[in-house]
Amino acid sequence: MSKQILVLPGDGIGPEIVAEAVKVLELANEKYQLGFALSYDELGGAAVDKYGVPLADETLERARKADAILLGAVGGPKWDTIDPAIRPERGLLKIRSQLGLFGNLRPALLYPQLAAASSLKPEVVAGLDILIVRELTGGIYFGQPRESKVLDNGERMAYDTLPYSESEIRRIAKVGFDMARVRNRKLCSVDKANVLASSQLWRAVVEEVARDYPDVELSHMYVDNAAMQLVRAPKQFDVIVTDNMFGDILSDEASMLTGSIGMLPSASLDASNKGMYEPCHGSAPDIAGKGIANPLATILSVSMLLRYSFGQVEAANAIEQAVSNVLDQGLRTGDIWSEGCRKVGTVEMGDAVVAAL
Amino acid sequence: MSKQILVLPGDGIGPEIVAEAVKVLELANEKYQLGFALSYDELGGAAVDKYGVPLADETLERARKADAILLGAVGGPKWDTIDPAIRPERGLLKIRSQLGLFGNLRPALLYPQLAAASSLKPEVVAGLDILIVRELTGGIYFGQPRESKVLDNGERMAYDTLPYSESEIRRIAKVGFDMARVRNRKLCSVDKANVLASSQLWRAVVEEVARDYPDVELSHMYVDNAAMQLVRAPKQFDVIVTDNMFGDILSDEASMLTGSIGMLPSASLDASNKGMYEPCHGSAPDIAGKGIANPLATILSVSMLLRYSFGQVEAANAIEQAVSNVLDQGLRTGDIWSEGCRKVGTVEMGDAVVAAL
Ligand SMILES: CC(C)[C@H](C(=O)O)[C@@H](O)C(=O)O
Ligand SMILES: CC(C)[C@H](C(=O)O)[C@@H](O)C(=O)O
Repeated sequence: MSKQILVLPGDGIGPEIVAEAVKVLELANEKYQLGFALSYDELGGAAVDKYGVPLADETLERARKADAILLGAVGGPKWDTIDPAIRPERGLLKIRSQLGLFGNLRPALLYPQLAAASSLKPEVVAGLDILIVRELTGGIYFGQPRESKVLDNGERMAYDTLPYSESEIRRIAKVGFDMARVRNRKLCSVDKANVLASSQLWRAVVEEVARDYPDVELSHMYVDNAAMQLVRAPKQFDVIVTDNMFGDILSDEASMLTGSIGMLPSASLDASNKGMYEPCHGSAPDIAGKGIANPLATILSVSMLLRYSFGQVEAANAIEQAVSNVLDQGLRTGDIWSEGCRKVGTVEMGDAVVAAL
Repeated sequence: MSKQILVLPGDGIGPEIVAEAVKVLELANEKYQLGFALSYDELGGAAVDKYGVPLADETLERARKADAILLGAVGGPKWDTIDPAIRPERGLLKIRSQLGLFGNLRPALLYPQLAAASSLKPEVVAGLDILIVRELTGGIYFGQPRESKVLDNGERMAYDTLPYSESEIRRIAKVGFDMARVRNRKLCSVDKANVLASSQLWRAVVEEVARDYPDVELSHMYVDNAAMQLVRAPKQFDVIVTDNMFGDILSDEASMLTGSIGMLPSASLDASNKGMYEPCHGSAPDIAGKGIANPLATILSVSMLLRYSFGQVEAANAIEQAVSNVLDQGLRTGDIWSEGCRKVGTVEMGDAVVAAL
């Protein structure tokens, strides 16, 4: 039986970069006889335009049935002023939550060819290779109750709730330890246990899970210190595991250390490694439609898809190698361009990867 | 009548660095005839040892009566394993909250003499001068309810609450705008309004306050993007205003951009500019008692104390100038030392500032 891949191009540069990634995916499909069948639907603003909501029920149904999902990016100024309840981001949050994609893997990897693009000194970031494991379906993103109301004295107030249960923490901690085990066996759990009740439970449960991973060196760090250490000496980290909100902040900070967020893919996995794959960067509405966006993060998301949802290590490696070769050839989209390299557009970059594969 | 200054040396390197700052404060007191009377008490671990709690009622009473407070730093491994309810940090949180010190000013300033210490490229950080205005007595740090409990199914869970009221947001927004007005008239409000109910209210109220400050250019940024932009191009910021948790994370990240967190002071102000002043760095237990800690952040906290709580601009400027002169002389503690400079200890550094004043 064929494997179903649902493709959600999304908004802004989404359709352009996904088109290139699909070329790579289809070539891999053929070359490695993966038996993938691709279908398409909308998420985010494009879904608002088509269905009136950022994630239609039928799309969610299709996503449930699919074996993996490839996503571009969502959001844009066109939908900034609509009812908050149907803003593009809501579609993204809903699909994560409804599919139980709790394990978000966000690598921050510095490509040697792009070392100059970082705003950090070369010696601080050379060889940087961090993996941030972010809890993606719990915490303050989804906690209830949450409300905006008017108090008796006429004043408005609003609040959110940050809850974590033992099982939510345990399963994401396991992802962190498992990842550390196949990397450099160092896991840093980030929390704010000196202030938050939820973080105290987080730390306790991570400690418990650690007993099953004596081969992994576990440390704990407060989130404020982690934000500092990422700037000061990022190479001290191997794998970082943290909650939804802290993971949002720290993974963006970490990705920017590489100076080339246009290169970074991500995976969001459920308990059985079914996953949604997307670039770390956003929908970049300012350059949408110009044919200049960098498709490499989305192409590398295809590599993650092959690796994590289908165990196709050979095909995944081949795509990563093809991307590296293209960089070696000196091809660069505008965001990663530097003196002496050849500036290319989205399609030319995609074609180059296809050729290298 | 004399002005009362309460000095709380705290833990770790606190007593050493505060001793140097007090020398500077006493000299300024004499030279500018400020009429300050100093008294001393304990906070944090030192208070646990003396009173059994990290902030004794009598200390709080003294703090209430004082016109300003100078704090070293709190915390250390000695108290890491005691009952969480009386850990050193609890004393710090309680004094902030009980005195209504809602306005936390955290400058991130790069001293030209120390430009090499940053892990960022010189061109990215040269001339960096950001002020982070952090809400300090509300949000998830103090929100109720918060609880750790066992569910009916036997699973543990814990939660925190992130509340903000209109008046809490309005008063901190005003601090942000007021600060921007005397700086470069640019205020960036950081929130997560695409996810959090409290952030949506935050953004709405900041917009309302903005009407009274047409001369200040207001922008909004999501916290994940802010964490990225601080690494990518920190000089785009003038003043950042944000909530307690985001401010904790971003101010630490921003301070590390300068590479010399040992240089950065902070102020925590109430509605009438009564304040507590402390270095941004922690109690550094690993180097406590060795006489090598950098006292400059605490000395610069004295400058902030004179400026913000007493309007003593001349004395405040003189201290800043003295610190700058000492750096020009090539004196450096270990944390900011580089080739060609003279390494000095805590006392020698303090004496040099006193001499320069
Ligand atoms: C768009 C937004 C809701 C989302 C998040 O905060 O999770 C994004 O920032 C991300 O990190 O994927
Ligand atoms: C010690 C801790 C509770 C405190 C905080 O989080 O506010 C510290 O990190 C700070 O920023 O002053």
